[in-house]
Amino acid sequence: MSRALELAATPGVPLGPNPRVGCVLLADDGSVVAEGFHGGAGTPHAEADALARAGAAARGTTAVVTLEPCNHTGRTGPCAQALLAAGVRRVVLAQSDPNPVAAGGAATLAAAGVDVATGLLADEARALNRVWTFAVEHGRPFVTWKFATTLDGRSAAADGTSRWVSSRAARLDTHRLRALSDTMLVGTATVAVDDPALTVRDEEDQPLARQPLRAVMGLRDLAADRRIFDAALAGGAETVHLRTRDPHVALAELFVRDRQHVFLEGGPTLAAAFLAAGLVDEIVVYVAPALLGAGLPAVADLGITTITQAFRPTVTDITVLPGLDGEQPNVRLTLTPAPRTET
Amino acid sequence: MSRALELAATPGVPLGPNPRVGCVLLADDGSVVAEGFHGGAGTPHAEADALARAGAAARGTTAVVTLEPCNHTGRTGPCAQALLAAGVRRVVLAQSDPNPVAAGGAATLAAAGVDVATGLLADEARALNRVWTFAVEHGRPFVTWKFATTLDGRSAAADGTSRWVSSRAARLDTHRLRALSDTMLVGTATVAVDDPALTVRDEEDQPLARQPLRAVMGLRDLAADRRIFDAALAGGAETVHLRTRDPHVALAELFVRDRQHVFLEGGPTLAAAFLAAGLVDEIVVYVAPALLGAGLPAVADLGITTITQAFRPTVTDITVLPGLDGEQPNVRLTLTPAPRTET
Repeated sequence: MSRALELAATPGVPLGPNPRVGCVLLADDGSVVAEGFHGGAGTPHAEADALARAGAAARGTTAVVTLEPCNHTGRTGPCAQALLAAGVRRVVLAQSDPNPVAAGGAATLAAAGVDVATGLLADEARALNRVWTFAVEHGRPFVTWKFATTLDGRSAAADGTSRWVSSRAARLDTHRLRALSDTMLVGTATVAVDDPALTVRDEEDQPLARQPLRAVMGLRDLAADRRIFDAALAGGAETVHLRTRDPHVALAELFVRDRQHVFLEGGPTLAAAFLAAGLVDEIVVYVAPALLGAGLPAVADLGITTITQAFRPTVTDITVLPGLDGEQPNVRLTLTPAPRTET
Repeated sequence: MSRALELAATPGVPLGPNPRVGCVLLADDGSVVAEGFHGGAGTPHAEADALARAGAAARGTTAVVTLEPCNHTGRTGPCAQALLAAGVRRVVLAQSDPNPVAAGGAATLAAAGVDVATGLLADEARALNRVWTFAVEHGRPFVTWKFATTLDGRSAAADGTSRWVSSRAARLDTHRLRALSDTMLVGTATVAVDDPALTVRDEEDQPLARQPLRAVMGLRDLAADRRIFDAALAGGAETVHLRTRDPHVALAELFVRDRQHVFLEGGPTLAAAFLAAGLVDEIVVYVAPALLGAGLPAVADLGITTITQAFRPTVTDITVLPGLDGEQPNVRLTLTPAPRTET
């Protein structure tokens, strides 16, 4: 199964919208008959890939697969049927399929007399497709809210300027995280005021070949000259304007577009709306060792009036990002929202 | 000299108002004739201590001392004269005396024919008496500004409640730092609203035997029932009300009272006044991974209007304080103010 997980994570395989899956066909003596992995939407599933490589040698083997074989016909046929047709005798799987449409593969196989074992390295398999699993289970994209702040909680100065609150090292780190998402989302106010390009760029400030969707939400009309609408700037990245103020509606629209991981970047009002709706699944904060004394707050009013109502997420990571080019270090905190403690 | 520095830092020796000093008398063959250290105001200086222990054996020795021997008569006689009278032949010293009143000891010794070498481990000797050296050189106390903040820069909730923004681990750390100062300073508004006891307490919440001076500044009259005036609560700690809004005046008054290290604890207006006056020498910030969305800012307006004017101190330390009793970790940043960068 460790080898199957390695295959699933083959470099170059896209993070979404399909899960990453690996499959190893083993002979009775434990020797590898064939390996396979899923290379992304429109390519064969991992089981099909391994079966094709094995040919007739698949008969009587044990299929070790990181995700429950699918039971439905999508762009490829159901893997459960393919395994049966190839004469696979035993299936060992890690993560059960969280997708109600695709699930049932294990039951189909067992009903046909195949010996099915479930759950080996299941946590590792879930972690491998953390965002995909979340999106399938919740029927909406996973939301990472990122913001940069000074020590006194300002994300922009009094005149609205915010380039740059955080260090170059923090901004490079942000681009790395953006590249792991499939959608970057901001509010119309941010587009109107800051005019961000919302592209993912490398260390030489060049746009990456693969760009997440650029999404803006809000009712305000936007001028066509905003950089977010400039496809050339972003190597052809798409842009969508979601005409709603409701985070639920925005996420539903993005989910229909096969979006599984939204990287929410501002501003404070949008962040407060997502927080209030309970639609923030991860928070990434860059704390810059600077003071402004005035300016735009990192987050707008949350309806909290007293200290015991403070929103206290769980810290999953704290990393010091050393300064580049003589800049000061910044601190990155990663947090998972938890229910408010009302004591 | 390393041994002399060790002697200077003998456990139990108070941090102020006198410098910590160690002295070793060496024979020609490098063997130790006698050692001494200064045990705080009113006790013999390190040189006098070593000379007393050596008696007649001091004649012809080399005195290795961490601070330039004093040249003036304070509560004890001048050490330069004492070394001459004892027949010490050579003096090796680390830090030159920064005090214009006491300085001149090295010149006096050299003029009398003693071989004087200066500067050995001088940086270590200065670091040993960092605050004393600063206070003597600048004619005012060293100021450490401490504040606790949420990730969105709030030091209290909208209703003014602030117990507690930071974790118990952070509060224990604050008491440790308070104990290293000789004065805790707050504004009258903080006393009126928060009514802090301003005592240094141990892990069992008991006041330490030695308490820093409790100082409050501002023009507002304060009710006598404020906890800051309760001597019993603080094991007899003194309290002083400095009736000024000017940080320069407040520090001058404290310096007259032999105060060398002010621990400035709030609120935002007082902090802004000290920052604006350039009278903050060190900043200690506890960042709690919480959000309030509204409330009292950590620091009031600094007159900064645009991002390039941001006040960007130099980071000297970043430490993660693990949570106690199931609390989340807090991050402590220690910073040294630097000039504003106006680009």
